[in-house]
Amino acid sequence: MFLKKNDRETITDIGEFGLIERIKKIAGRPNAGVVLGIGDDAAVIDVGTNRYLLVTTDILTEKIHFNLDYFSYYQLGWRSMAANLSDIAAMAGSPENAFVSVAIPKTTEITSIEELYRGMKDLADLYQVTIIGGDTTSSTSDLFLCITITGSVEKTHVTARSGAKINDTIYVTGSLGGSCAGMKLLNQIKSPEPAENSALKKKHLNPQPRIEEAQYLRQNISLHAMIDVSDGLASEINHICSSSAVGATILENTIPLADGTKEVAAALGEKPLSYALNGGEDYELIFTAGGEEVKAIKPEFEKKFGIPLTKIGYIVEAEKGVSLTLKNGKEAGLKPTSWDHFPEG
Amino acid sequence: MFLKKNDRETITDIGEFGLIERIKKIAGRPNAGVVLGIGDDAAVIDVGTNRYLLVTTDILTEKIHFNLDYFSYYQLGWRSMAANLSDIAAMAGSPENAFVSVAIPKTTEITSIEELYRGMKDLADLYQVTIIGGDTTSSTSDLFLCITITGSVEKTHVTARSGAKINDTIYVTGSLGGSCAGMKLLNQIKSPEPAENSALKKKHLNPQPRIEEAQYLRQNISLHAMIDVSDGLASEINHICSSSAVGATILENTIPLADGTKEVAAALGEKPLSYALNGGEDYELIFTAGGEEVKAIKPEFEKKFGIPLTKIGYIVEAEKGVSLTLKNGKEAGLKPTSWDHFPEG
Repeated sequence: MFLKKNDRETITDIGEFGLIERIKKIAGRPNAGVVLGIGDDAAVIDVGTNRYLLVTTDILTEKIHFNLDYFSYYQLGWRSMAANLSDIAAMAGSPENAFVSVAIPKTTEITSIEELYRGMKDLADLYQVTIIGGDTTSSTSDLFLCITITGSVEKTHVTARSGAKINDTIYVTGSLGGSCAGMKLLNQIKSPEPAENSALKKKHLNPQPRIEEAQYLRQNISLHAMIDVSDGLASEINHICSSSAVGATILENTIPLADGTKEVAAALGEKPLSYALNGGEDYELIFTAGGEEVKAIKPEFEKKFGIPLTKIGYIVEAEKGVSLTLKNGKEAGLKPTSWDHFPEG
Repeated sequence: MFLKKNDRETITDIGEFGLIERIKKIAGRPNAGVVLGIGDDAAVIDVGTNRYLLVTTDILTEKIHFNLDYFSYYQLGWRSMAANLSDIAAMAGSPENAFVSVAIPKTTEITSIEELYRGMKDLADLYQVTIIGGDTTSSTSDLFLCITITGSVEKTHVTARSGAKINDTIYVTGSLGGSCAGMKLLNQIKSPEPAENSALKKKHLNPQPRIEEAQYLRQNISLHAMIDVSDGLASEINHICSSSAVGATILENTIPLADGTKEVAAALGEKPLSYALNGGEDYELIFTAGGEEVKAIKPEFEKKFGIPLTKIGYIVEAEKGVSLTLKNGKEAGLKPTSWDHFPEG
C-alpha cells in the first residue's frame, strides 16, 4: 500500500498562506464587535468609543527570522518591535502598548535579555509606546519572541487592505530591497565596506516603522487600501488585490530600489528586482489612493519625512490579474512568491 | 584571572520572577491610560468607556509546558486556551477575542495543527471568545505557542492582586494538586486505571478556567484580591501578599486536595501537599474577601458550579510574613517556590 501525499500533508506542503486559510475556516465568524479579523495587518475591534482598538501580534524565531551571528540583542529587540509597529502603521493607527513574550535558552546571559528589552524600549519610546505585559519562559533550543501591540485609530480613518478601487494609483514610501541586500551583506561579513553597505545593513538591523508617515497620509489624503512591506512587494500587492477583489499593474522601472541594492545583487549574481519583490522586511508602506490627491501632497511629504513617495502602478479590473510591466514593455504575472516562513527542505 | 559568577549570570541563576523584575525596570512607567501593567494576571487599560480593556498573553513551550507524548494536539489547544482564559478570570473579567501565534516544526502534519486550533476553538466557544488574529511561522526544533486574549471588565469591578486587606479571609475554588498528580500519572502511563486517575489526568489535559465562577463572585461579593493558580498555591499567595503589602496564614488541614492526589503521591513516595503548593496549573481561583460575605454565598456557589469554595486561611500584617500552619499546629514559612520555567541543570 502506498501513502498518498495528502495523507501526511505537512506545513511545508501548503505554506504559510495555505495554513492561514485553514485556520480561518476553523476560527469561524468573529464576534459582533470585530470589524476586521484574521487577514489584515491588525485586528480592528469596536470597543464603543470613537476610536477602534487595533491589535497585532508577531512571532519571531531564531534562525528563521533572525540570526544572532550578526544581530546584537539590542538590534533584535529594535527590529522585532519595528515589525509590530509597522503593522499598526499599515492600519494608519497610533500604537499604544506592547506585550512581549520570550522563550529563552537556559544558558542565555541576563545582560543579553536586558539588551533585547532595551532595544524594544528605545524604539517604542519614539512613539510613546510602553511595554506593559508579556510572559517569559525557557526554551529547549532557540530564542523565540512574540510581541503583541495594541493601538487605536479614529473610526473614520481605518485603512484596511480591502479598499483598493479600480484606477487607484499605487504608491510606496521610501525604497525597497534594502533590507534583503543588507541581510546578504551581513551573511558575507565583508569589511571594510563602503558607506552604502552600512546603510543597507542598518535597513536590515534597525528598520524604521512608518508610523508618522501613515498618520500624515491618513490626515491629508483619502487612503483606500494600505499594507506594510513585511514579505515583499509581490506578496503585499497580491494581498491588497485579493482583499479588494481587484487587479494591479506594477511598473518595473518605477520601483524605488534602496541605494546600493543593485551593486550587492550584481556582486552576488542575483537580480535586484527580486530583492524588492520577494525580499521583504523593508517595513515601507504600500497604499492605493486617487493619483491627483497624492501628487498634491508628495512634495510636502518628501520634505517632511526625507524619504521618497513613489508611484509604482495602478489598480485595474480583477480579470486583468496582478502583473508587472517589465522595462522592455512586456507583461509578466506577479505571483505572491514571498519569503516563506515554511521553506521546503 | 577568574570570572566572578555575576559576570556571566544566566536566566537560570535569577529565575523567572527575578527576570520579570529586571524587565519591569527597563520597561519603566506605563502610559497614562494603563491602570495595571506588568505584574498582574492581565494588563488593565482605560479606553474611555465604562469598561476597562484587559490584555493577557502566555507563551508555551514544548517539553517545558507540555509534552506531546501524552498531549493530543486537541488537548494542547484546549489547555493553552484555558491558561489564558484563566488569567482573564483572575481579573473577574469577560474574555472576548484571542490571538494565536504558533511556531511549528516543519515536519508537523497539517491535521495536527488543525486539531490544535479546534481544541482552542472548542473551549473558546464556551465563553463566546473568537480567534481573530495571530501569526504562524516554522520552528527549527520544538512547538511554541503564544496566545493573547483581550477582554473587558466593568471599571467598578476590576480585581487585582493588590487589594488584599488585613483580616480578609482567603478562599480557593475547586481543589488543588490535581493537575500535578495527573501529570505524574501521565508520565507513568499506567493502564488500566481507576476512574479517579482518569479524572486527574483530565485535570492536567483539559482544565476548566473559572470564568463564570469569577463573574458570579464579582457580582455577589466584594472581591478584594484575586489570582489564578498557574504556578501553585505557595507562589500565588506570595504574589497577592507582595502586591498588597500584607502577610498571610494558610492552614494546611483546610487545603482542598483533588480526589486521588493523596494516592498518587503515596505511590510515588511524594507529599500531596507539595502538589497543591508547588504543582501549579490547577487554574483555580484564590481570592480574599470578608469572611461573612463569602459564607453567605458559599452554598449557592457550590450548588451552581458543582465545586467547593474553601476557606484556606486569612490575611495578616506584613510583618508576620506568609506562613503555613501545619496539621501539628507548628508554623512554617511559605516561600514562592513554584514550578520554575527556568529550572537549573
